[in-house]
Amino acid sequence: MARAVLESQTRTVVIGFDAPFCVIGERINPTGRRALAAQLEAGDFATVERDALEQVACGAMVLDVNAGVVYNSDPDPNRTEPPLMRAMIERVQALVDVPLCIDSSVPGALEAGLAVARGRPLLNSVTGEEDRMEAILPLARKYNVPVVAISNDDTGISEDPDVRFAVARRIVQRAADHGIPAHDIVVDPLVMPVGAMASAGRQVFALVRRLREELGVNTTCGASNVSFGLPNRHGVNAAFLPMAIGAGMTSAIMNPVRAPEMAAVRAANLLMDHDPNGAAWIGLARVLEAVAAGTGFAEASIAAGAVPGGRMGGRTGRGARRRGG
Amino acid sequence: MARAVLESQTRTVVIGFDAPFCVIGERINPTGRRALAAQLEAGDFATVERDALEQVACGAMVLDVNAGVVYNSDPDPNRTEPPLMRAMIERVQALVDVPLCIDSSVPGALEAGLAVARGRPLLNSVTGEEDRMEAILPLARKYNVPVVAISNDDTGISEDPDVRFAVARRIVQRAADHGIPAHDIVVDPLVMPVGAMASAGRQVFALVRRLREELGVNTTCGASNVSFGLPNRHGVNAAFLPMAIGAGMTSAIMNPVRAPEMAAVRAANLLMDHDPNGAAWIGLARVLEAVAAGTGFAEASIAAGAVPGGRMGGRTGRGARRRGG
Repeated sequence: MARAVLESQTRTVVIGFDAPFCVIGERINPTGRRALAAQLEAGDFATVERDALEQVACGAMVLDVNAGVVYNSDPDPNRTEPPLMRAMIERVQALVDVPLCIDSSVPGALEAGLAVARGRPLLNSVTGEEDRMEAILPLARKYNVPVVAISNDDTGISEDPDVRFAVARRIVQRAADHGIPAHDIVVDPLVMPVGAMASAGRQVFALVRRLREELGVNTTCGASNVSFGLPNRHGVNAAFLPMAIGAGMTSAIMNPVRAPEMAAVRAANLLMDHDPNGAAWIGLARVLEAVAAGTGFAEASIAAGAVPGGRMGGRTGRGARRRGG
Repeated sequence: MARAVLESQTRTVVIGFDAPFCVIGERINPTGRRALAAQLEAGDFATVERDALEQVACGAMVLDVNAGVVYNSDPDPNRTEPPLMRAMIERVQALVDVPLCIDSSVPGALEAGLAVARGRPLLNSVTGEEDRMEAILPLARKYNVPVVAISNDDTGISEDPDVRFAVARRIVQRAADHGIPAHDIVVDPLVMPVGAMASAGRQVFALVRRLREELGVNTTCGASNVSFGLPNRHGVNAAFLPMAIGAGMTSAIMNPVRAPEMAAVRAANLLMDHDPNGAAWIGLARVLEAVAAGTGFAEASIAAGAVPGGRMGGRTGRGARRRGG
């Protein structure tokens, strides 16, 4: 039973076969968000802070933090990303008490994040590329953190799921050479758009099952990729997530500020017997009643308030009780 | 690859491992619908006809027909159900060109239905009870039709999925004794409410997989039972269906006049590579746009019109082309 244990300042989140599906909030990422990139260049963290609060209120258990900007003033991410990653993590940690997922293609930014992150964050990511494995796996070992392993290598992303499985197995083996156990590897088997490759869904479900049964690793994915280019994307995502969870996927990097996807995840948790007494489902049902009456999902979730990992400070008493429990 | 072939007057529907999930419309059933029961006793079939048209427009591929009334004027279903079943089937067949699922606990009503149903209907149902097996299996053999097998027996419904599997296996073996092949058995593994039994979802997913892999049979269920007693039942159903489909379930007896459930089924078909070119998904997306703008799902589906198995007469030309194709 693979269990990757993540920690924030006071809370523990398990990504594991016997745990509720781990929703990793994807919003704190300036890639493709020009307004956010410009704000960050100007030292304005208001959007980051709002995204942190909203995602946690909506049910994100872990927050991905990506500092992937290309500044107008300095085009070299090796210089700009590390200090920005540090600043973003400090802002987010000051606000919410959930484990972080430090997300960068710049090793210096990953290390800068690891140096300031509290608890036990998730490192995102290593691939099967030689230079990436030799740069990232020692970092994961040094800081003793779980790591996301994306199943592409120096030859690129294969459309053949057997090749992607082989890449994942090679990363797991190399990680073992570095002293990192399989249960601390969270494989992203790479989800193709089903609109472009009709077998993409079946491929992923079969891959997740193999990764779990043959390698004993946790799994994750960029969930919304499956619906790229299709109408009613939320509807596709909201079926994909339960199917992936049923196949054994244990986490996804996704937008939690979307009611259809979060309802699908919570219903799947209930159906997998990962929601004791249906408490999370019943809580969500109340929020969705407010949504049906016209309130936004984030707003209704914040108003409902009973979400673990909420705003720091006002909830420290509650957090402290949880630690003791 | 189990394939149970159903036929209406001109159309073929396959319940099978390699086919789109078969939606069997459950609405034509007076059980628990007092107004409908009273209408039927008065010889009024208007609701039956509306239910037939709406369900097919919304995507039902097969229509369940249940004549389970208890008349005030005659309390013996052995007398009242057979002629009512015959009348209901004749009305439905005059209106829509989809295979039927003849549903009764009264053997005489099943045989009355078999005698008038066009094509190759589905017989619903046999159980593992001795007297039921010996009454129903010869009927299925005589009319050469597939049969729904519900996995309870003379000891009742077991909460132990291994017992329910054993009951299903016994029915399959007994059917073989009667000359009925496994691919013409559609097992209902019995879905318990997850609100009453937290493991109910996992149980069914595991059972469906075993039934498929070990017995080579198709599967079905009363899908909405899983959400009994919970808030936001549609949300639970809409996650359950994709998970069941991912586990290998090949049909469900369900209400197709519900957008969340039908969207979940169509998205799951797409993700299982059972929707060539995403045509059904794209068609549904247009209907859901109308629903979002305030139109009812049935009304919007009827207006969209491009649904196979629609109203007889106006569509015969289309049906004839389909037969030739």
